[in-house]
Amino acid sequence: MTTPLSDLPFTLAALRDAYASGVTPAEVMTEVLARLEAVRDPAIFIHLASAEDLAAEAAALGAFDPDRPLWGIPFAVKDNIDVAGMPTTAACPDYAYAADSDAFVVARLRAAGAIPVGKTNLDQFATGLVGVRSPYGVPRNALDADIVPGGSSSGSAVVVAHGIVPFALGTDTAGSGRVPAALNGIVGLKPSLGALSASGVVPACRTLDTISIFALTVMDAHDVFRAAAAFDPADAYSRPLPAAPMPAPSPAPRITAPDAASLIFFGDDVQAADFEATLTTLAEGGARIDRVDFKPFYDVAQMLYDGAWIAERYAAIEDMMRDRPDAVHPVTRAIIAKAEGQSAVDAFNGFYRLADLRRACAPILDAADMLCVPTIPRFATCAELEADPVAPNSNLGTYTNFVNLLDLCALAVPTGPRSDSRPGGVTLIAPAGEDAAIAAQGLRLTEARRPMLGATGIETPDLPNPEPAPLSGSEMTLAVCG
Amino acid sequence: MTTPLSDLPFTLAALRDAYASGVTPAEVMTEVLARLEAVRDPAIFIHLASAEDLAAEAAALGAFDPDRPLWGIPFAVKDNIDVAGMPTTAACPDYAYAADSDAFVVARLRAAGAIPVGKTNLDQFATGLVGVRSPYGVPRNALDADIVPGGSSSGSAVVVAHGIVPFALGTDTAGSGRVPAALNGIVGLKPSLGALSASGVVPACRTLDTISIFALTVMDAHDVFRAAAAFDPADAYSRPLPAAPMPAPSPAPRITAPDAASLIFFGDDVQAADFEATLTTLAEGGARIDRVDFKPFYDVAQMLYDGAWIAERYAAIEDMMRDRPDAVHPVTRAIIAKAEGQSAVDAFNGFYRLADLRRACAPILDAADMLCVPTIPRFATCAELEADPVAPNSNLGTYTNFVNLLDLCALAVPTGPRSDSRPGGVTLIAPAGEDAAIAAQGLRLTEARRPMLGATGIETPDLPNPEPAPLSGSEMTLAVCG
Repeated sequence: MTTPLSDLPFTLAALRDAYASGVTPAEVMTEVLARLEAVRDPAIFIHLASAEDLAAEAAALGAFDPDRPLWGIPFAVKDNIDVAGMPTTAACPDYAYAADSDAFVVARLRAAGAIPVGKTNLDQFATGLVGVRSPYGVPRNALDADIVPGGSSSGSAVVVAHGIVPFALGTDTAGSGRVPAALNGIVGLKPSLGALSASGVVPACRTLDTISIFALTVMDAHDVFRAAAAFDPADAYSRPLPAAPMPAPSPAPRITAPDAASLIFFGDDVQAADFEATLTTLAEGGARIDRVDFKPFYDVAQMLYDGAWIAERYAAIEDMMRDRPDAVHPVTRAIIAKAEGQSAVDAFNGFYRLADLRRACAPILDAADMLCVPTIPRFATCAELEADPVAPNSNLGTYTNFVNLLDLCALAVPTGPRSDSRPGGVTLIAPAGEDAAIAAQGLRLTEARRPMLGATGIETPDLPNPEPAPLSGSEMTLAVCG
Repeated sequence: MTTPLSDLPFTLAALRDAYASGVTPAEVMTEVLARLEAVRDPAIFIHLASAEDLAAEAAALGAFDPDRPLWGIPFAVKDNIDVAGMPTTAACPDYAYAADSDAFVVARLRAAGAIPVGKTNLDQFATGLVGVRSPYGVPRNALDADIVPGGSSSGSAVVVAHGIVPFALGTDTAGSGRVPAALNGIVGLKPSLGALSASGVVPACRTLDTISIFALTVMDAHDVFRAAAAFDPADAYSRPLPAAPMPAPSPAPRITAPDAASLIFFGDDVQAADFEATLTTLAEGGARIDRVDFKPFYDVAQMLYDGAWIAERYAAIEDMMRDRPDAVHPVTRAIIAKAEGQSAVDAFNGFYRLADLRRACAPILDAADMLCVPTIPRFATCAELEADPVAPNSNLGTYTNFVNLLDLCALAVPTGPRSDSRPGGVTLIAPAGEDAAIAAQGLRLTEARRPMLGATGIETPDLPNPEPAPLSGSEMTLAVCG
């Protein structure tokens, strides 16, 4: 091994190579803590494992086992997901409890050899897209301290963008797994609803939540997704969806984007130009780009906070809202309290409207292999959020809020710096179950653009020649004769 | 033709034969009115087409066209489904409006050659299983005037049971397409949700409603279902489900029934014995009968009126409940008013509980080809309903209320007289999309039992040798080589 561990990019491939050449997990855990120390941001983690505990976890792995796909891989966990032996706070000290077992997904990742290093900061109760609504401080954006880190999975995005861990778990209801990825120049994978179990996760909107994955590369995010995905009979919203190996990307995918008249950038012309440039890259790569009036999708997006679904957030913390409202962050409380005036009739009227809007969106989705949208319409600065804690947050959800309401999967990918050097990025979106297809196109896009890996200063690496991915337990090789 | 028209059983096969041998639709329409007159029950229809209008409709059909599967077939329509030129009342005079176009399903049946003869009485706003909650009177049960006609599709069931029309449309949310079938000894087909468009139907619970079909034979019900089914983009809850020809019945179906400890008959030992006798018939026919604790299904059933879905009924008539509550039937109003105290949080908590209960029911459904339950646990008399307008109604939904909440399809079939000569019957239930499979088993059961056709005194006829059903537009013949 020639690269010193301190210079190693923390991708899965690089770490696997390092382990194969004799590096030990104990050394990697020490390096994780050293990198975190160097960043000097005490607001990233709400709870961090001790060096002793990490050393013990590393030692418990035993000899290098290349058959465990995440052997020795450190990862961070958003603090609304249980890790055994660590507190779960959801960024609300009065809500906190000691988790005595791993969330289903954490348990699967641990079984694959991964080691959770700590619990990351978030917008309280995963309500927000900015990352500033937490009594545990505000993680600094990994690329530019003036702009918000993004949320609600703020700490998970920042810690990956710094290259401290190869991946982190977030959650995504409105866009909490995509917006912070865009703001920190990394990959944000928002799986199909139900693909990753919600057992051991603090709900935001139970019918619309999913665990999400932050990583430096599309390949890493998809590898983690495959390791994490499994049907969980104990989670009533779990679904037996495919978690397929990434296929070869379609050479001529039909990709639909909002037309010029319906794109929204809130005045950010650099973002507008950057989005068009990415569509050009996709077209040069063989994609057929269709442009449509995006109004039906915006209409759906509008329903997430203006409609009945806010009542799900209330249902999730009903006791606190009733008995200890002062323990809830004032911005969060004001948002969630809107549910108090909503009736069951309002809820059903909302579902009927959503059903109609789904029907309006269906022809657009049916005619495309995937959608491509800007992940965020513009950046939001910490100063703006101090002046107005709600509007810049709402704006950030322009291209994310509709996705879970329409039962779609999404992948936020970095596309390299915009003309002003802020991170560019788009999100690919497809119907539930198409996670592998959008990953394949996302990988292709990052291969074309070669963005830096978050804030690491390292360029997206060459891929090894693709090999057939190992089969999962529910798959078998078929030889078709006839 | 040897049988005089007045003696002809009004099945599709008999009427098609009659038409092929020269009978005219005008003669059949005259016979429909004569049969109705003979029954002397002014509460069956809320609106009846005039003899002149029916003659005109008959004349407009032109020459006999055997390619139109329902050419010249008269049918009745529950008065919460629009027929152009007739009022729609939903059994509430203050709610009534003039329908200027046919409901989607009525239009399809008319295109297939069928002629709507009138609009039938119902429990107001399709809320009830008894058929007595209507300001338009109570249709008499076709078999026994002491027992309730059943509802909410009371008029549609009674008019078919008398052999006045070969089929009638009902609707079914809680069991309104099955309970009155059982009480009148006919077939009640409750399709998979979304298979029949709800365009032009007054909603009860929009997420749980479906048009249903009453007929004298399983074959007729399924033929009508196939003619009526089509995806309707204008109905947000329409689904592109199969409306397949009836397959050959599985020779050894796995049929699951409630075990002895969990069967509920409210003291009706005759019904209990009759149900066991039907299971014996099924077993003798080759079925494997499994018995299970039915509690999870009862728990789901309980949610329909005790849970948030009552708010859908409120949403459907919100203006009336707010502005003209006195115009609503007092029993109906008392039931629907329960929604006034329900919050959106209550609604979501209900969905979460239903999701958990679906998971509890899933292993039972997965292990079976279909369920078999008594359609009703016991009979209810008109006298009982006068003494208590709610409890006997609730009891009638014991084996029906859970079906739409679990997205299942169902077929209520008559099995012949019980030992006390009241009509016996069971319901076959399977997951959405399995309509043809349960029809095939239902047909087999009626072939074994040969029940009388409703109140006509005519036995279930021999079937013609089954021929391959004609292909619909979306199907093609495949020859598989290899």
